[in-house]
Parts: sequence; structure tokens; C-alpha cells
Amino acid sequence: MKVIEIQEKFGIDSLKIAEREEPTPSHGNIVVKVKATSLNYRDLLTVQGLYNPKQKLPLIPLSDGVGEVVAIGEGVSRVKVGDRVAGIFAQKWVSGNPTKAKMVTTLGGPLDGMLAEYALLHEDGVVHVPEHLTDEEAATLPCAAVTAWSALVTYGQLKAGETVLVQGTGGVSIFALQFAKLMGAKVIVTSSSDEKLQKAKELGADELINYHSTPSWEKRVREITGGEGVDHIVEVGGAGTFDRSLKSIKFAGQISVIGILSGLATEVNLIPILMQNVRIQGIIVGSRETFEDMNRAVSVNKLKPVIDKVFSFGETKEAFNYMASAGHFGKIVIKL
Amino acid sequence: MKVIEIQEKFGIDSLKIAEREEPTPSHGNIVVKVKATSLNYRDLLTVQGLYNPKQKLPLIPLSDGVGEVVAIGEGVSRVKVGDRVAGIFAQKWVSGNPTKAKMVTTLGGPLDGMLAEYALLHEDGVVHVPEHLTDEEAATLPCAAVTAWSALVTYGQLKAGETVLVQGTGGVSIFALQFAKLMGAKVIVTSSSDEKLQKAKELGADELINYHSTPSWEKRVREITGGEGVDHIVEVGGAGTFDRSLKSIKFAGQISVIGILSGLATEVNLIPILMQNVRIQGIIVGSRETFEDMNRAVSVNKLKPVIDKVFSFGETKEAFNYMASAGHFGKIVIKL
Amino acid sequence: MKVIEIQEKFGIDSLKIAEREEPTPSHGNIVVKVKATSLNYRDLLTVQGLYNPKQKLPLIPLSDGVGEVVAIGEGVSRVKVGDRVAGIFAQKWVSGNPTKAKMVTTLGGPLDGMLAEYALLHEDGVVHVPEHLTDEEAATLPCAAVTAWSALVTYGQLKAGETVLVQGTGGVSIFALQFAKLMGAKVIVTSSSDEKLQKAKELGADELINYHSTPSWEKRVREITGGEGVDHIVEVGGAGTFDRSLKSIKFAGQISVIGILSGLATEVNLIPILMQNVRIQGIIVGSRETFEDMNRAVSVNKLKPVIDKVFSFGETKEAFNYMASAGHFGKIVIKL
Amino acid sequence: MKVIEIQEKFGIDSLKIAEREEPTPSHGNIVVKVKATSLNYRDLLTVQGLYNPKQKLPLIPLSDGVGEVVAIGEGVSRVKVGDRVAGIFAQKWVSGNPTKAKMVTTLGGPLDGMLAEYALLHEDGVVHVPEHLTDEEAATLPCAAVTAWSALVTYGQLKAGETVLVQGTGGVSIFALQFAKLMGAKVIVTSSSDEKLQKAKELGADELINYHSTPSWEKRVREITGGEGVDHIVEVGGAGTFDRSLKSIKFAGQISVIGILSGLATEVNLIPILMQNVRIQGIIVGSRETFEDMNRAVSVNKLKPVIDKVFSFGETKEAFNYMASAGHFGKIVIKL
Repeated sequence: MKVIEIQEKFGIDSLKIAEREEPTPSHGNIVVKVKATSLNYRDLLTVQGLYNPKQKLPLIPLSDGVGEVVAIGEGVSRVKVGDRVAGIFAQKWVSGNPTKAKMVTTLGGPLDGMLAEYALLHEDGVVHVPEHLTDEEAATLPCAAVTAWSALVTYGQLKAGETVLVQGTGGVSIFALQFAKLMGAKVIVTSSSDEKLQKAKELGADELINYHSTPSWEKRVREITGGEGVDHIVEVGGAGTFDRSLKSIKFAGQISVIGILSGLATEVNLIPILMQNVRIQGIIVGSRETFEDMNRAVSVNKLKPVIDKVFSFGETKEAFNYMASAGHFGKIVIKL
Repeated sequence: MKVIEIQEKFGIDSLKIAEREEPTPSHGNIVVKVKATSLNYRDLLTVQGLYNPKQKLPLIPLSDGVGEVVAIGEGVSRVKVGDRVAGIFAQKWVSGNPTKAKMVTTLGGPLDGMLAEYALLHEDGVVHVPEHLTDEEAATLPCAAVTAWSALVTYGQLKAGETVLVQGTGGVSIFALQFAKLMGAKVIVTSSSDEKLQKAKELGADELINYHSTPSWEKRVREITGGEGVDHIVEVGGAGTFDRSLKSIKFAGQISVIGILSGLATEVNLIPILMQNVRIQGIIVGSRETFEDMNRAVSVNKLKPVIDKVFSFGETKEAFNYMASAGHFGKIVIKL
Repeated sequence: MKVIEIQEKFGIDSLKIAEREEPTPSHGNIVVKVKATSLNYRDLLTVQGLYNPKQKLPLIPLSDGVGEVVAIGEGVSRVKVGDRVAGIFAQKWVSGNPTKAKMVTTLGGPLDGMLAEYALLHEDGVVHVPEHLTDEEAATLPCAAVTAWSALVTYGQLKAGETVLVQGTGGVSIFALQFAKLMGAKVIVTSSSDEKLQKAKELGADELINYHSTPSWEKRVREITGGEGVDHIVEVGGAGTFDRSLKSIKFAGQISVIGILSGLATEVNLIPILMQNVRIQGIIVGSRETFEDMNRAVSVNKLKPVIDKVFSFGETKEAFNYMASAGHFGKIVIKL
Repeated sequence: MKVIEIQEKFGIDSLKIAEREEPTPSHGNIVVKVKATSLNYRDLLTVQGLYNPKQKLPLIPLSDGVGEVVAIGEGVSRVKVGDRVAGIFAQKWVSGNPTKAKMVTTLGGPLDGMLAEYALLHEDGVVHVPEHLTDEEAATLPCAAVTAWSALVTYGQLKAGETVLVQGTGGVSIFALQFAKLMGAKVIVTSSSDEKLQKAKELGADELINYHSTPSWEKRVREITGGEGVDHIVEVGGAGTFDRSLKSIKFAGQISVIGILSGLATEVNLIPILMQNVRIQGIIVGSRETFEDMNRAVSVNKLKPVIDKVFSFGETKEAFNYMASAGHFGKIVIKL
């Protein structure tokens, strides 16, 4: 079977098509014929060698992928041949809180990921995906959508009427916007592009801030919220935005840190956290149960993920370069 | 000023218009010129002497009412003259869990209620109401809407995608339907009337069960939910429905008991509760903070309460008789 | 290998020693040489055919057992040969809330239980037990101790200073007493025996009520708590006690229903639940993660389970008869 | 009456005894004859002008104080003359989450504090204190003890068996140690003094780390916890310790930031927060309900606060200098 590998050394140019033997499922395992995959910022950092420089190569990248079960091993009962499933981010994180042991089983590094014709997974490491979605749409869910849900719902216990601030228009942010609106929240979106803000409005955003024309956007947030600040912030910006987020949050509000999206280093003054009784919650995707909870919400509400662009298997480098360069809106998909 | 009193003895026929001296606000108190009030089943039971037979008379009934602040006492800072406010159900229950001490301060018994030209309340015992609502609409919120919100959101921690079962089409049930839809849940409504079920569908209900034509509605609930049962039940039926509710609930689901609506006695087998890890949660309205949380959701989503019929001050007996006899849909209001 | 089976029909007299082939572990499975087991009321009901009359026979009874891992199948990584482990109650309930699918995998029915020389279990269906405990002590944990912990800590979120009411001196109740004291709570114990109450006092009980000499014990509870009622009740009594429990609980308190201990039928008036905002929480043991949380607490605090009496494998009938007849104090153990 | 004021400008030397008129209670207010007060690091910063440089002077310092109710205004029902009470930190924060409006009502700045012969407070702004405590002991509770409880119990939901890391031996840290032991947790204490560590051990500390002889104490924490890290950290060190705390915390653990104790500025790398799903929770004391919950735990367990040194009213400057210079163990008290 054909796979894409990061070969020998890191870098987008090291991505190569390779041949591997088609897997056969041992006890408890299943084989998935992959139909579509999607990119996350973590995948880009992994390819660039910035996420985990000690990662062993070759590695098949991408944690997100959807396909059809084509073979099952002995003892498999959760899925059957013909089912459409997605792999879960951390293969051993079924429910509860994450642990070190659970978190070393993530797809797309250290374990091989989904950018291959076939993927060998444990039956416990997949979920069924909502029926109303295309393969491309379903492929956007495992990392970005689960992260947004985990931040707002699992850890944030979002209630209708609360105000959510979403930074930019990347994959996690657009899902956060969609989930927040689904649950009756008020949503403020920031972006440097009026065009993207307009698209966000079409998805339901209540308030738009162009941080290019309004660099001190935290002041605008205070205005919008009558001086109170927002209840939740989905913080993807890191160094450039954290201080402004701290000035935008309400007493006892939650800032969910998804910082990896924006780079690997940032610093923050602790005092405002303390003085406002604020909670900073790290969010590293979520469990299978969280994924299943989210899928139920996606199904009941017939929610459609937003895809920016679809690439073919042969255009993998282009897909990564597109993620590296462009300010995209929603998710980037590679179809097989 | 004119008030309505339960005079001398209980009974709808004992409701009389009376004259009382117009109140003046002492320290911390305010005077509200009442514009509209609404009825709850508890008010009917109170008038009938069934809720609290030891209640001292005369009593001004009704916990729910909205009006304009026309005078404030010394030291008042939460509201000002001209504000539009509603009284809160238990005057001392500002936030946190209820306590015995907080719960003996409920309007409409033991304390005088809102069916009067003017009401004297403490500034801590009122909330501002959503601007987009008429007085009649705002008057429906204090008891029924807060109860529904408290059940599903405060205690039930409702998430998008969950399934909620709502019994009938009374005030609490219709608010529960509206809030559940607002938060992306799937809603099943039961009623004995196809006409009312159709109205519920227009409000967003996903599944309708006529319990007249489908008396074993719990079986239909199991079918709809793929055998799993529902996540939340807003139980207003009491004796007639509780056993079926226990057969309709999911493992680890929550049944919120609002049983007073249906009468004063019922019994239940404990074993299914135990064996399914189910939670039975008593819900006795909610705190001022819960009311404020809910108002924010109502405002952000421009939600409109459903009013069944509006009566005039002079038609108070008719209003109570209407509640006693009719299977209504939404709330019954008395306008002043 | 030797096992005890309920053969052909239900009843303590149907318990027979039988021979079965010694198991060998397939993929993911392990073989445990059982050292000690313990009895729960559910086991007695199972043997009597009262718990699940449709249970297929023959069945090896008992959900609780501890032993040494003597063989492991391919792919096993959570345990190794030589480890001391206990089986978990529901083999598929690793974490999160229970589901129907998880709860049909309980040991001692429908699955074979631990009263055998060797038990074949999945590696995910066991936990390591605290080192400071003897095998007999460790064998008391899987059902009774996890139930008590689940009620008070997982679902009850017990805080120091709260008041817990424990009914009687059976396995769950004594663990509830011990855990409540461990976490700084005040504990009231009821029993019909002054001797047992005295033993409970030695374990830390703060207040003792002999319900034989004080049949209206709910009044005494109100006195002790200054009229407020208790925060938590571990309800094991069922029909005979539930109404009194409802009169003993505080506003917004939790009654954890472990009713199976006392029989299979009881009824309860819903109104006090509603009017006091009380929560009735069914508790059906707990997940593996709950078991592990509890073990950590047992280890850190060097807590010792209370064993009433130890029987030999050959005295199995005597052990069940002892549970059926006697008012015991703590746990009944069968040693292999 | 005699009071201590920060007069004209900030600084310990600006603390002067002054005369003010003895207060009389208006509606809802009470007068407390102060018996004992205690110092917190925030009080020192306030006196030095570092906490709130815009604070209006003169100001009576100290948020913590205990005394006897000697007069009550009209309408007061929560307390009566002769009761022993303590003021609560934020006079308007009765329960629920803090808000901006609640948090501008803190004693010892911006409102006058407790270092006076008599204090005028609203009846809602006090709590009864545990009977078994002396006035000096009770005076240590309002800020430091409530902060420790709020961090571990209210926000941290501490369970028996969890591991808590406590930094140093100041007021908050020693209360955190005591509360954690009260609830069955394992406690690691760091200090630069073996003598203080020994005292901590006498209070129940399980593991001691001298960060003078073991500067990389985070490594020792990892050893003690089998590589996992601790569940809770009570972070009082700020800049000097936060990075090490992030290396000592478990996946999904909570670091409670009480940073004001150590100075006003520090920075932190966000990435480890994210990658370990860690929660950073700002803790700014707690509500009256939290104070009451804690008092109940203190009473039930007859817990005794640890007092380092008691000064007289006339030795106020010495008390502040002692706090500024010394590494104390527990609380510093000024008796009136």
C-alpha cells in the first residue's frame, strides 16, 4: 500500500510517497481503508521537526483520518466491516482525564498516523462518525473539533447566554464558533481580515473585531461586554495575544490554552490570573468519550464542518505549504 | 392601592379585591408598580389551601410579577427608579444552594405575592428582565422558566446533543423545551393532544408522543433512543408518570422532579434508580444568580416565552379557574 | 482446578465444588491464582435466584476476589506475572459513567466470578491492590468499598466538616464510615445493637443511634444537626428506612441509594425530594478509575478494612448462611 | 475609639494610632468590638503602597479580625449582641463566584479594615467563628485559611489519597497542609529551613524538601510521586517557583495561584500547561459560604491554627516589620 512518510529528516520536502505492506489485523485490531484526512498545526510542527525533535523517522504523519473498516481481528466487537470510523487522537485515552501513559499513544507521532491507504488501529481507538457528513467533512473532527468541544463543553461547561471569544479563523476557532452558537452563546471573533470576519458572521458570530484596525482589541471586548469581560476565551494565539486575553476575561472566567497552534513559546504575567480568580485550562484534544459526545451534538444539529480547501494524496506537500503560509478559514483536507 | 387577597378561607371563590395602604420603602427596600403577573400550579394549590394549609390569611397570591421601580429606600444601589424588574421566588436565595432559612421567604406564601398594584420588596429580591420582552412575557419567568433552567442547566449541566424528555405542555415544560433547543439538545414531548404536539413541534420539538394513543410511551422513548433512554427528564407528572420515566431514562441520567405541578403524592420504586445509577434531583425553582444566568440566555437568543392566555386584574378568578380546568399550553398571565 | 458453582438450580444448598479445566490466557487476558474472596449482599441474592432469575447456570459466584497473576496472554502490558490484583466489578467499566453495555460485564453473574482456584480476566479488568493489606483485607474492596467511595466521593463530593449518616454496620456502611472519617466528616451511625455501635465508635463514629431504642431516629438526627439534617446519607435500608432518610436529609443534600443490600422493593414519596431540592443518587459500585482513586486513599492513609469473619473454601455454604442470618459487622471473607 | 491608620503616605512608619468616633450601627449594620486581628502579605503590600498605589488614605489596615458584637442596627437578624464573629474578606461576596462588584468591597483596602477598637460592618459581612478557638486563633481565618480551603476544596475538589505540594510555611501554606491532611491527602512541604520542615512534619507533612539543599526540588517531587507529579500545588512563590511547579504537576492537575504572597510580577511558559492539560486557578480568598464551609470543618475536627507570634496593638509596626523580614511559620497576630 501507499503511504506518505517523513523520511530521514524533518521538513515538508522530506514528505515522500512510500510503499509498505498492507496490514492484517491481529487480536482486537482493525484495518481502516482511509478515505480522507485533515491537517492540524501540530502536524505541520511535527513535519518541521519542531513538535518533537526526538521523533523516530520514518513517520506517517496526520492524526486525523476517516475511512471504512475493511478487516477486523479476533475478538473485535465495537465495529464491523463496512463501518465508517475515525481514529481518535490518543489511542489509549478512552475516557476520564488524560494521563502520561494515555498521551504517548497519539497518532501522527509518536505512532504512525492516517496519511496512508490503510491504517491499522485497535478497535478501542476509533469512533463512528456522523452519518450526514461527507468523508472530507468527517476527517476534520478528531483533533480540531474535539479540542474546541473539550475547551468549551467538557472543561468549560458552557451555558447559553455566556460570551465566548474566538481568536482567528483556523480549524479550532471555527469549530469553537459553531459549537458556541449551537449552545446559545454569544460569540466574538477576532481576525485581521474583514473578509474572514464576514464569513464568520455568516456562521453566526455576533461581534467582529479586526485586530489589524483595532490592535487593542481587548478594549473593544470590554466595551461589547459592558466592562465585564467574556466568560470563555479559546486562546490559540500564544505570545501575541495572551496578555490581551487576560484583559478581556471576566472574573472567574476560563481561558482555554490551545497555544500550540501559534508557536511554541510565550510568557504570561500571573497576577491578573490571581486577582480575577481566572482559570487557565490547558486543552490537549480530548478522550474518545468526549469525541462521541461531540459527534452526538454534530448529528442532532446537522452541523457542517467548514473546509477551506481539499488536496489530493499527491498534493500533500502543497497541503502542508498551504497551512504554513496561508491564513486559512476552517480546515485543510487531503482526500485519498 | 388595590390588591387581590385570599381572604378568611381558602378557595378560588375566596379571592377578593381589597384595599391596602400604598407602601413606602424603608432602608434597602423598593416599591414596584406591578404591570403583569403570571400563575403557577403552586399558586393554584396555595389558593386551594393544598400547598400549605397552615398559611396565614389574608394573603396576596402569586410569586411571579414584573413592574417598574417607583420608589427606593435609603441605601438601595442595585436598582433605580424607572428600572423594570421581577421579584425573585425566594427573596433570600441570592446564590448557592437553597437552605431552610432561604426557602421560607417565598412570594405568594408565606410572604405576600405580586397580585397587587404595588409590591414592597428588598432590593436584593429582584432582577432586571430582558429588554426585548413585553411586561406580560417577562412576568412568566420567575418561577416556571427558572425551574426549567435550574433543572436542565444548573443541576443538569445539559450539553448539545443530549436528549431531553418533556412531559406535557404546561409552563415549565414549554420553557424546558425552549431551553433544550437553545442549547442544541434533542427534545421529545409527550401530550394527550395532537394539536398541542403540533405547536410543540413549531417550537422545535424533535419527537412527539401522544400518550393517549401511546399509553406505554416509555417503549416509544426507548425506540427513539435506540434502546438507550434519554439523558434528562423534566418530570412534572408525579404519580401517573414516574414509573414510566424510570423506564425511559438512560444509565446515569437525571430525572428532575417538579412534581408539585401534578399533585401532592406519588410513590416510586427505588430499585431501577439504583440499578441504572440514575439521579433523581428535586428542583424547587432557583436562586437569583440562576435567574440572572437564564435572563442572559433569553436576551442573547431573543427567546420569547409562550403565553396561553392573558386575563385582567378583575378576571383573577377566571384565570385560576382556567388553570384548574384547562390543559393549557405555556403560561397564564394576569395583566394589571 | 476446583471452583464453586451454583449448579442446576438456585439456593445456598446448590453451591457445589466442581472441577473445571485450568484456564490459559489468550490475547489480552491474564490468569489470576485466587487467594481470597469476599461476599456481598448481591452475591447472596444471586445464589438465592433473587437478583437475576434468568441467570444461566452453572455460575461461579462472587464478584470480589484477590490473587496473584500467574500467566499473561500476548499483548498484556498493564500487569505482569507475580503482581497482586483484584478483579473489578464490571469488567468493561474502566472510567466515566456506567452504560448498559458496560454493566452487563459484572463478575459473579452474568460472568463467572472469583470463587475458583484460578480466574481468567482481561488485563483491563483488574487493579493492583494496596501493599499494606493482607489478601483477605484486599479481597473486601472491589464491591463494598468502591460503592462507599463512589457514593461519598465520586458522586457525593464529600468535604471535611459535612455530616454523613451511615445505616447499620454491613460492608458498605463500615467502609462509608471509614472513608467519611478519613476525609474529616462527622459521622452518625445507626444500628440495633449497642455492641456494634460501640465498635463503630472505635472506628471514629461521632454519634450513635440505636434504632431499636430510638425507632424515630430521624428526630434524633435533626437534634444532632441543630434541625438542619445531614449532608449525605448512605441508604442501604430500602423500604424500612427511606422515609426516615428523607426526614433526616438537609436541603440540597444527597441520599445515595445502595438499596439492593436490603431487599428488592421499596417505595418512596417524591414530594419531600422536590421540596428540599434533594438529590437521590443510585450507586451501582464504580469504575476501575474510581477503584484506583480509592486504593490510593487506602494506601496513603494505611486504612484497614474491617473483616467480620473468615471462612475456608470448603465452608462456602456456611459463609453464605452467615451472611443470610447474622447481623454482621464489616465483611465476610472466604480464603482459598 | 483608637484605630491604627496608614496616614498621609504609605510605609510601615506611616502607621499611626489615631482617634475616631465610635460607630453606631444604622439599618442592617453591626458594631464589633475587635479582640484580635492577623496579618496577611496583602496587608503588608497595602501598607507599603505596592498593592494599590491609588488607595485613598488614611486607611485602617488588615482584612482579618475577630470580636464581639456589641450593637446591632434595625433589621439585623443574622447575629445578635454577644456573638463572636469575624469579618469576611470581601464584604459583598456572600456566595457563588466572585464578580468585579463583589471584589471592590474588601476590608483593609479599599474599605477600612479591622485594626481598630470597633468595626462597623454589615450583618451579611460577618461569620460566626468556631467555638473551640481562642480569639487570636479565630483571627487567623478570614484570609489565609479561606484561601487555602478555596484552593484545595472549593476549586480543587480535593480527594483523600491525592498528593498536595505546599510551598513554604507561611499562613496560607500551613493551612493548606492542615486541610490536606484533614482530608486524607499526602502532603509534600518545601522550605529552606530544616527546622521549619520538622515543624511541618509534626503537623502531618508526609514528605519534606529543603529547597536550599535541593534547589531542583521538582526532580525530588517526581521521584516521590513515581514520576507522575502531584495533583495539587498551592503556588505562593511566584517568579521563583512557577516553572518548577509546572515541572512538578501531574497531567490534568491544578496549580492554585496565590502569587500575591511573593511579589507582584512573574512570568510563565504556557506550553507545559497546554501539553499536560493542566489547570492554573487564580484564588482570591473566597465567599462567605466558603468561609462557613471551612469553619464547619475546623469545628468538627477541632483543628487549631498555627500562630507564629502575637503582638500587642501598640506593637503594630513591629508586627509588620516581622512579617517583612522574617521567614515565619504560620500566622502573625495583633491582639487588642
